[in-house]
Amino acid sequence: MVRGNSSSDKQELENIFHPRSVAVVGVSLDEASWGQRYLFSLMEFGYRGDLFPVGRQGGDIAGLKIYEKFLDIPRPVDYVICCLPAPLTLQLVSDCVDKGVKSVQFFTSGFSETGEEDGIALEKKLLEIARRGGVRLIGPNCLGIYHPAQGLTILNTVPHMARSGPVGFIFQSGGNSQELVEIGASRGIHFSKGVSYGNACDLNESDFLNYLAGDADTGIIGLYIEGVKQGKRFFRELERVAKIKPTMILKGGRTISGSQAAASHTGSLAGAISIWRAICRQTGAMLVDDLDEMMDLMIAFSYLKPVRGRRAGIVGVSGGRSVQAADSCESYGFSVPPFSPEVREKLLELTPREGASIRNPVDSYLMSWDPVLFSQALKVLDGYEGVDFLVVDISLVISVLNSRRSDSLEKQVEAIVDFKTGSSKPLVTVLSFDGTEDMLKLSVELQQKLIAGGVPVYSSMKRAVCALDKFVSYHEVNR
Amino acid sequence: MVRGNSSSDKQELENIFHPRSVAVVGVSLDEASWGQRYLFSLMEFGYRGDLFPVGRQGGDIAGLKIYEKFLDIPRPVDYVICCLPAPLTLQLVSDCVDKGVKSVQFFTSGFSETGEEDGIALEKKLLEIARRGGVRLIGPNCLGIYHPAQGLTILNTVPHMARSGPVGFIFQSGGNSQELVEIGASRGIHFSKGVSYGNACDLNESDFLNYLAGDADTGIIGLYIEGVKQGKRFFRELERVAKIKPTMILKGGRTISGSQAAASHTGSLAGAISIWRAICRQTGAMLVDDLDEMMDLMIAFSYLKPVRGRRAGIVGVSGGRSVQAADSCESYGFSVPPFSPEVREKLLELTPREGASIRNPVDSYLMSWDPVLFSQALKVLDGYEGVDFLVVDISLVISVLNSRRSDSLEKQVEAIVDFKTGSSKPLVTVLSFDGTEDMLKLSVELQQKLIAGGVPVYSSMKRAVCALDKFVSYHEVNR
Repeated sequence: MVRGNSSSDKQELENIFHPRSVAVVGVSLDEASWGQRYLFSLMEFGYRGDLFPVGRQGGDIAGLKIYEKFLDIPRPVDYVICCLPAPLTLQLVSDCVDKGVKSVQFFTSGFSETGEEDGIALEKKLLEIARRGGVRLIGPNCLGIYHPAQGLTILNTVPHMARSGPVGFIFQSGGNSQELVEIGASRGIHFSKGVSYGNACDLNESDFLNYLAGDADTGIIGLYIEGVKQGKRFFRELERVAKIKPTMILKGGRTISGSQAAASHTGSLAGAISIWRAICRQTGAMLVDDLDEMMDLMIAFSYLKPVRGRRAGIVGVSGGRSVQAADSCESYGFSVPPFSPEVREKLLELTPREGASIRNPVDSYLMSWDPVLFSQALKVLDGYEGVDFLVVDISLVISVLNSRRSDSLEKQVEAIVDFKTGSSKPLVTVLSFDGTEDMLKLSVELQQKLIAGGVPVYSSMKRAVCALDKFVSYHEVNR
Repeated sequence: MVRGNSSSDKQELENIFHPRSVAVVGVSLDEASWGQRYLFSLMEFGYRGDLFPVGRQGGDIAGLKIYEKFLDIPRPVDYVICCLPAPLTLQLVSDCVDKGVKSVQFFTSGFSETGEEDGIALEKKLLEIARRGGVRLIGPNCLGIYHPAQGLTILNTVPHMARSGPVGFIFQSGGNSQELVEIGASRGIHFSKGVSYGNACDLNESDFLNYLAGDADTGIIGLYIEGVKQGKRFFRELERVAKIKPTMILKGGRTISGSQAAASHTGSLAGAISIWRAICRQTGAMLVDDLDEMMDLMIAFSYLKPVRGRRAGIVGVSGGRSVQAADSCESYGFSVPPFSPEVREKLLELTPREGASIRNPVDSYLMSWDPVLFSQALKVLDGYEGVDFLVVDISLVISVLNSRRSDSLEKQVEAIVDFKTGSSKPLVTVLSFDGTEDMLKLSVELQQKLIAGGVPVYSSMKRAVCALDKFVSYHEVNR
């Protein structure tokens, strides 16, 4: 009984992402209980609808009455988060049908992902009851819906950096969702809507993809997929969405070892990576190697204007790093063409030391300590037609060691942010996270200033050009 | 006039790395002057021989008399660091000949790397005077000798983490040397001897390679090379050294863009990367892509016992990360074979939650919070013949978010260090540097504990398996 892609489905998904009330079932007074943690996650995240904790011990928690039985809740419930042990889930879904609940998300595991007959049968039964009663299921074995604008969150997120943004995610793994949301926030990636969907016994990746394709708040989509439930439909949805929104896929279980692990994680039968490469080629979706790469790409699409060519202008510090920067660029299909004599002439005027290279890469070793010179140099390159985008390599170690002026990097970063405001060329920065605790502290401060100014930050040249390669390819195809 | 590899050369190099006295020429009272910085670098680093600052203004600095003229120094000088402008270098070398100086290192640039006739001629003349007078030259356009056991250091290093260790380096770039030394120290890489050698007008990569090959303190060698001066000799030296010491090469200028940058950096004519691949294949040296990869590999060779096979045992947190960990392993030629029924039985006893995967990867999500269970699980795997090495994936975000016990990760790390002491299997850890400032602070603390316990730390699974791939290949060939 596979559902199609109908407008009623769309309304169902719309309801799921906008529940007016949430019940968390399986809340005990034990601090370590998952139910309690889910409840607190929602409260800390500022969920604005009605919240109903349910737990057989009863009592009160954080000013809320704990209902001993689900059906004791006196008001309507839209969305249920289930933290009960697997054997108790059938009764809950049955109760949800009786109460007219719209959807249930199962944190509970112990279903088809175990590979055992009992678990598979239980999941099947769960779905039967839900389908008969018109209740939609998310999971089981997942963390559920993330929608910061509604204060709806997955388990144990840290609310302080959560902000709404253009990125939607559809992630089969809960742990990966947590990493995406948390690391993403610190790197300047902000989310419209997302879901950790686990075993996908009812709503699956195609349903969510279809929904995010039509969601006005979502401009960029990331998927983490171990196995697909409806292959042909997924292909259709992907083909449609990748044309209108940059869509990237991390395929979990793309090797024999990985697919064995995936089988015991979400019970997925993972396909060969060659098939996934073909799927992405045909649909225009972007295949990434790991979560880091996906985030790097999300940052590019969140912050950068379209890049219209492959000629890089590099502003670096130190000759050796510049050589390697140029090597990295070319390894990923970019060129680093020497600047025109006119541009070199202008740069020469801004370079205090004779002999520093200004061909491209620019060795800004000395001018980087003078924010005025530095931003003038950036402006010269911004007006130059011979390069398509700029990379500023902020070498923390070299700059800190050699300047002995702790504020010089801050000023350089301010100059970059200032420049960005009025610039016409896309610009990315490379800022490494290495070294002592003090060095890392400085890295984070500079990173946050750059992000606040809308400037993408990558932790290595390799990661920057790897992301830019896919980003530029996307714009080469989608002009 | 190319020199061979004679025993007199060896003694010369020995002298260069053990100078009984050092003169820094070009010291002014201006804080920003390079000469002054060099002087302070040596003092802070605890150089134990005589130190003579030379600067035409004279005066005193940090309790030392500044000699107005080099020849005014009343005692013998072994090693000279030259920070004079290029036009003044000829007279200095001539004075060095008169004074019987053993070697001169030129921080000064403006020679052949400019590509201009004047610079090329000046460098040639410098060498002529030096050769006639038996003075060896390092550079020009470089940072010189690094030898922590002697308190001899390159420019502006931070002394607090410097410790002697097994790694020697021969780096054409000064900035790269600084990064290697500084980032290396924070990652647990310690150095025997090293050199930043720039334009290599006299002593070149082959001389230093020959010296480090015979140096008892050096067990691992890293080279950053833009261009080679004596191709055939270099190949011979490399062939000889790579057989007895793990030797890794980062080739700067391996693309057209990179080699153009290299030409204006050290005046090097960079060779095609295909040639370098062939050289490494034939000699057994390891070619790396960037400085990060080189450091990852240095860590493996510094800390790990030889790995005798390609079967990984992975201990991770969260199913999704484990799937990707297995994928990464297999992408780099490792397998992640399911554990035997006996091992699974034992692991099952240690896993508090039913259903957590214990096939390989082990989902240690719950047991990681209990250091006793965690180290017992590690011991089970240590005794198991079915895997050759262990990877522990410490997911900071997932662990911190879900445990809410700030000390659990510290205990997990202590368990790993405890385990390492009595273990028979090589073990590496993955610990990311991402997230908020607090998260990074915790990462650094955990990283330092692991390093102090002799456990290698990598910032991503990809980087760990990339280094392990080359490390295992090395031991496959050199049994």
